[in-house]
Amino acid sequence: MRYELYYWPTIQGRGEFVRLALEDAGAAYVDVARRNKAGVAAMMKLMQAKAGTPSFAPPFLKAGSLTIGQTANILQFLGARHDLAPKSEAGRLWVHQLQLTIADFVQEVHDTHHPIGTSLYYEDQKGPAKRRSAEFRKERLPKYCGYFERLIAGSGGPFVTGRKLTYADLSLFQVIEGLRYAFPRSMKKFERDIPKLIELHDRVAALPNIAAYLESPRRIPFNEDGLFRHYKALDK
Amino acid sequence: MRYELYYWPTIQGRGEFVRLALEDAGAAYVDVARRNKAGVAAMMKLMQAKAGTPSFAPPFLKAGSLTIGQTANILQFLGARHDLAPKSEAGRLWVHQLQLTIADFVQEVHDTHHPIGTSLYYEDQKGPAKRRSAEFRKERLPKYCGYFERLIAGSGGPFVTGRKLTYADLSLFQVIEGLRYAFPRSMKKFERDIPKLIELHDRVAALPNIAAYLESPRRIPFNEDGLFRHYKALDK
Repeated sequence: MRYELYYWPTIQGRGEFVRLALEDAGAAYVDVARRNKAGVAAMMKLMQAKAGTPSFAPPFLKAGSLTIGQTANILQFLGARHDLAPKSEAGRLWVHQLQLTIADFVQEVHDTHHPIGTSLYYEDQKGPAKRRSAEFRKERLPKYCGYFERLIAGSGGPFVTGRKLTYADLSLFQVIEGLRYAFPRSMKKFERDIPKLIELHDRVAALPNIAAYLESPRRIPFNEDGLFRHYKALDK
Repeated sequence: MRYELYYWPTIQGRGEFVRLALEDAGAAYVDVARRNKAGVAAMMKLMQAKAGTPSFAPPFLKAGSLTIGQTANILQFLGARHDLAPKSEAGRLWVHQLQLTIADFVQEVHDTHHPIGTSLYYEDQKGPAKRRSAEFRKERLPKYCGYFERLIAGSGGPFVTGRKLTYADLSLFQVIEGLRYAFPRSMKKFERDIPKLIELHDRVAALPNIAAYLESPRRIPFNEDGLFRHYKALDK
């Protein structure tokens, strides 16, 4: 079966967490909106559907007769199918809990450049963005990263739940990548405080399928339309 | 088995979504931090644990040997055990997807009074809060509520996935309750646009276990320390 991923064609965004899982699994998939112009229209149409399981927002994944929305929900589904999550109920719940905490973290990163609203441009909310970013860098970044650093220490590593890779590790890799892009100045100093998280990042980057993906044209470069954006004013 | 719920003792907050599921199910549970003063200390200690599955933030639920964090994850677990979610994989994924969309909605409600950061008081971010609330009432509130209204129409109702109650319906009830508390002026006008969502709310309120819970001292009144806060300036 070939999966169909529906996501915005020009950004990594939340879709990237799904792409990384599909790529690591070596799964066959089409990135529908990137294939041609009709793709975005098809995506919008599915979201407007009156029946079935229309998503509030992309990404969503078609898998046979299923259409699954919400990033963490898609990853939970793929994790079970592609050995990217434990088989036990306790293990599955734990990895999903971690993914939902990553989702909260990522939302806070997004809000550094959009504290007032998603329907406005960054340029219309620069002042509040500067304040929110300062608070993020000082309070939230160390709190979230410190939490995951402590978990890797507790699990014995090298991955967040221990010796076995899960979809949460792929997402943590992406978070570090994104933070480095958005806040290079802050991260340069801060990375020494989270050595285990950086080691996890490096291990994921070196996974054969991930390394090949990162080198491929399928990996969209970070840019200022995405989730992780680099604005100098927000990095001090 | 008696569940142990860990959440802040003086607010509804995110814990309320879990409380509503436990109450509707008639499940035996202790609201640990509300039992006595040692409860909050016990909660903080569990969050600092070096091993196991410590949560980044409350709520979390102890269920036998499991400790489960993240509201939607807890609900997914309870849903399967207490007949508050479909048995089929497709049905389970759909209800969980809806719950995650509700979580996003609720986060946006929270950010109306805390657009700059959770480590600051509302009083320190009144200006941005006013702007964010205006954008929320104009754009986000109709978009989210319109989505759920459309789903109820599509499923045939009275609940969001059709004839059977799920944990997502309990959460939608709570969202409407919270919106009425936080934005009474806006909701008074807006409710006529979402009749099916209001009918769903009323049906949930009339469920015997929920009705009894709402009358009981276990239901904490809304207040200005919680997720849904009423500030006149934010309701126009």
